[in-house]
Amino acid sequence: MTDTPDLAIDPAAEHDAEAAGCETHSHHGYMKEKDRYKARLKRIEGQVRGIHRMIDEEQYCIDILTQVSAINSALRNVALGLLDDHMRHCVADAVNESDEAAEIKFKEVADAIARFSR
Amino acid sequence: MTDTPDLAIDPAAEHDAEAAGCETHSHHGYMKEKDRYKARLKRIEGQVRGIHRMIDEEQYCIDILTQVSAINSALRNVALGLLDDHMRHCVADAVNESDEAAEIKFKEVADAIARFSR
Amino acid sequence: MTDTPDLAIDPAAEHDAEAAGCETHSHHGYMKEKDRYKARLKRIEGQVRGIHRMIDEEQYCIDILTQVSAINSALRNVALGLLDDHMRHCVADAVNESDEAAEIKFKEVADAIARFSR
Amino acid sequence: MTDTPDLAIDPAAEHDAEAAGCETHSHHGYMKEKDRYKARLKRIEGQVRGIHRMIDEEQYCIDILTQVSAINSALRNVALGLLDDHMRHCVADAVNESDEAAEIKFKEVADAIARFSR
Repeated sequence: MTDTPDLAIDPAAEHDAEAAGCETHSHHGYMKEKDRYKARLKRIEGQVRGIHRMIDEEQYCIDILTQVSAINSALRNVALGLLDDHMRHCVADAVNESDEAAEIKFKEVADAIARFSR
Repeated sequence: MTDTPDLAIDPAAEHDAEAAGCETHSHHGYMKEKDRYKARLKRIEGQVRGIHRMIDEEQYCIDILTQVSAINSALRNVALGLLDDHMRHCVADAVNESDEAAEIKFKEVADAIARFSR
Repeated sequence: MTDTPDLAIDPAAEHDAEAAGCETHSHHGYMKEKDRYKARLKRIEGQVRGIHRMIDEEQYCIDILTQVSAINSALRNVALGLLDDHMRHCVADAVNESDEAAEIKFKEVADAIARFSR
Repeated sequence: MTDTPDLAIDPAAEHDAEAAGCETHSHHGYMKEKDRYKARLKRIEGQVRGIHRMIDEEQYCIDILTQVSAINSALRNVALGLLDDHMRHCVADAVNESDEAAEIKFKEVADAIARFSR
């Protein structure tokens, strides 16, 4: 059991976004569905708390694994939605802006998909 | 964006566990590391809350995707740990008990790995 | 052990491509690296044949699983490369062409990523 | 596009197998389904060759990605089958033999599942 680092978002990352065609928040594709995404995250948070409780109550390992798979699946759907929105908005904007802006976005997206499919 | 069901653990599932060689909680392999698993779930819960906040603050999509990948990785490590503990305890006990008990366990584990690797 | 269908490419699929901004072969992003992709596929084919031989020679299951993981990893790299090339060429062309052409491409890419990340 | 190493099976690996309860070929779980596994690998080899041909014929990227996903899925089913057979035979034999033999097998299986789920 190795430990995983907490959230550590680099505050500089947003600057890259600004530099490359997503400079206003309204450009973030996911914004029009913000409330739905927030509701989904709330539900996933509840699912994680549910697993914590199952372990505390010493429930059956296989049942816990089933719940972990359900969370993974819910998170994957969130990620696929964010990625789709991102391409339709930030990436499309960057393509319209310039080849350099598009290049940055394509690289970012490819890296995100690679991380995500591992 | 499809919706994901909440936690819905079948209370009958634990009976199968009882019937097949994991009848006391002390047999659950993960129990000796219970506190560590609970700490990891707490941390994952915090990571999910962090993504909720990132969406609320309209942060950059790619940064959110990076965090989703980190949670997936943390959950996978939890699942791999639980599965390993489960095999060393519940499955090994079932093998020592009878072919029928072992058969139930092997089927459960194979199904869990299939769900998990999808 | 369920059976998997052989290659069954719908010949109509190319028409969709033609209709949506990738109408000439030179637009396919992967073309400039065609020889490298072909070399990689040849190597993967050899790896698959290697597993066939390992099974025929009744080698140790865990060693076979290691080779299966290596092939999965090689295929994932091919897919990530194709996807990246596709976005930089076909998708970017479609964005420049029209919203309708872009919409078709974004939907296709999202579906491909979803299939691929399962 | 990074390159992937060819098959490189350590000949010493089989000795570990011998030392830990899988010493005769008849113990390998997959042996009774050897012909079915070989037929599946032949089919996967044909699928890989099909992708090689699609690239040579400069077919549409998304169609190629669909075929890559189909191969990944076929390989995953082979791996899940081998793993299941391995647990029912080699692992169960090792559990019956000694704690030390079982420990080696559990470690190997956990590592194989971790590689496989990445």
